[in-house]
Amino acid sequence: MGETIEIAPVDARAAAAARARQEQLVKPPGSLGRLEELACWLAGVTGDDRPAVEARVVVAAADHGVACEGVSAYPPEVTAQMLATLASGRGAVTVLADQVGASVRVVDAGVRDAPALAGVVRIGLEPSRNLATEAALTEAEVDRAIGAGRALATEAARDGATVLIGGELGIANTTPATAIACWLTARAPQALAGPGTGLDRAGVERKAGVIARALDLHVRAIDGPREALRRLGGGEIAVLTGLALGAGERGLGYVCDGVIATAAAALAVAIAPELGPRLLAGHRSAEGAHTPLLEHLGLDPVLDLGMRLGEGSGATAAIAVLRLAAATHDRMATFAEAGVSSG
Amino acid sequence: MGETIEIAPVDARAAAAARARQEQLVKPPGSLGRLEELACWLAGVTGDDRPAVEARVVVAAADHGVACEGVSAYPPEVTAQMLATLASGRGAVTVLADQVGASVRVVDAGVRDAPALAGVVRIGLEPSRNLATEAALTEAEVDRAIGAGRALATEAARDGATVLIGGELGIANTTPATAIACWLTARAPQALAGPGTGLDRAGVERKAGVIARALDLHVRAIDGPREALRRLGGGEIAVLTGLALGAGERGLGYVCDGVIATAAAALAVAIAPELGPRLLAGHRSAEGAHTPLLEHLGLDPVLDLGMRLGEGSGATAAIAVLRLAAATHDRMATFAEAGVSSG
Repeated sequence: MGETIEIAPVDARAAAAARARQEQLVKPPGSLGRLEELACWLAGVTGDDRPAVEARVVVAAADHGVACEGVSAYPPEVTAQMLATLASGRGAVTVLADQVGASVRVVDAGVRDAPALAGVVRIGLEPSRNLATEAALTEAEVDRAIGAGRALATEAARDGATVLIGGELGIANTTPATAIACWLTARAPQALAGPGTGLDRAGVERKAGVIARALDLHVRAIDGPREALRRLGGGEIAVLTGLALGAGERGLGYVCDGVIATAAAALAVAIAPELGPRLLAGHRSAEGAHTPLLEHLGLDPVLDLGMRLGEGSGATAAIAVLRLAAATHDRMATFAEAGVSSG
Repeated sequence: MGETIEIAPVDARAAAAARARQEQLVKPPGSLGRLEELACWLAGVTGDDRPAVEARVVVAAADHGVACEGVSAYPPEVTAQMLATLASGRGAVTVLADQVGASVRVVDAGVRDAPALAGVVRIGLEPSRNLATEAALTEAEVDRAIGAGRALATEAARDGATVLIGGELGIANTTPATAIACWLTARAPQALAGPGTGLDRAGVERKAGVIARALDLHVRAIDGPREALRRLGGGEIAVLTGLALGAGERGLGYVCDGVIATAAAALAVAIAPELGPRLLAGHRSAEGAHTPLLEHLGLDPVLDLGMRLGEGSGATAAIAVLRLAAATHDRMATFAEAGVSSG
């Protein structure tokens, strides 16, 4: 990566000012629960004690050599088809983003036979190689993908975003993400592998076996998060690791989505631990490896709706709640303004 | 109540059509989790397989004779002060409603020394009597309050609402609500009494003792939900019971808020069991009696954010999620439209 990643520290003074305001709002102290915490978190990450939610969703898409191992319920050409669906605005995350007022950037981080689509950012990556037999990415690919993610965070900050979401799509990508989760949490593939988009029990066992082969092949050579990302990752995962790092550099909040996005964020925290307080868990995915990753990061998800779609969909849904937190924080009267006895 | 309450049956055909559409949307089946269920629920209650979320929040406010027993962290005059705050639009629920695009009606269901406020519906109720020493309401008051709630549901339906929320405010009102929860669930006051707006441990014990006295006084004379409402309830609780019944009569969905609104809805279901499928639990309140009430009704809350404010705030927050469900249901492409291989 060459240059050092400098994470902006969160603003404890803004967070404390927000906490003080919450105590004055016309409600029993603490009675808005998580909404109060979210407002204070956003104050800390933005440095603004009356923070605004301006959310940007970056959806990175990639194909994976490991798809040839039969680890997904869908054929590999679906990645390119879904890229086109997102570009049309009628995929899940684009509908959700529109509903919560978030902007979306779609990035081709190595989609096989991707159609030329207006508005899709291309970063010159090929599909990753099969992590069960070789390293998924080269050093140069990791550099390029992390650089692209950081640049997208810079662009988002320039556009006024206060909160970033990393979404992804890529047939077979819960396999590399679960391999990374195994490495990060020292858990066995059999314990963490899940059905992804809809594998049956035999499929999940096959997937766990593929992850076990990958870990057998790579784990002794992994000397840190960057090498874990290179050997076990994929193009979209590396872009999202860069995006989370970039959120830290640019002083933004970062909302984690499901298992792939959270694995990428966990690698970013392993690279730059000061990033931790800037992360929020948008939701708890139904995919098995997600909860161990959330526990590893010490994150308590905002939503628990049994979602397991990816694309950034769960984190984008959580923006609706973050907006409620910011709205009540900003617009409720104080006890003094309302002339209400404060108990 | 004189007339019979006729609950409109939910439309199984619209729900099935919505379920069939969900299976065709461009995502792995079931991967939107609860959002899919919510869209199908709303289809069933509205009879529209592409349903719209048009939410109305009715906030009923009342004072309670039982406040003289020291069961609240706030003095009784706060009810009237908070009524004015809601009328000004700067209370929690009015800010939340504005954010999620819901309309609000505020009802004086027996507030002591209420100021004359534009836009507040008056229904001619006095504060309830102290349930620890006598019945909280008269027969005539129960009739009037239930009738007002049903009329507010009719008004909401006429205004185009598809979903109703009952909110409330009233110093000391977790005491009658918890007494009702004890009666409905056959649990002891010591097991269900919680801190409300912020009682300390001694205060919670005192409150449990007051509820125990009320139950000792009334329980043998209670022959059904209407008499439980009369003896243990309060003006706002009775209005919300009527509102939930009216939602059933007018073919609307009804989103339950916290312990007071859910106790009122549970009485409505006890009066008219066919109402059950029209109810949704908006959130899980941090107040102790709420989870037993949700279990009693067989409801799984959409949000679990540690909120315990009342006013309809948690249910109104859940409208943000319901909107996401309706938006993805209506606006996502199908596999066929998107030209995506369906696995």
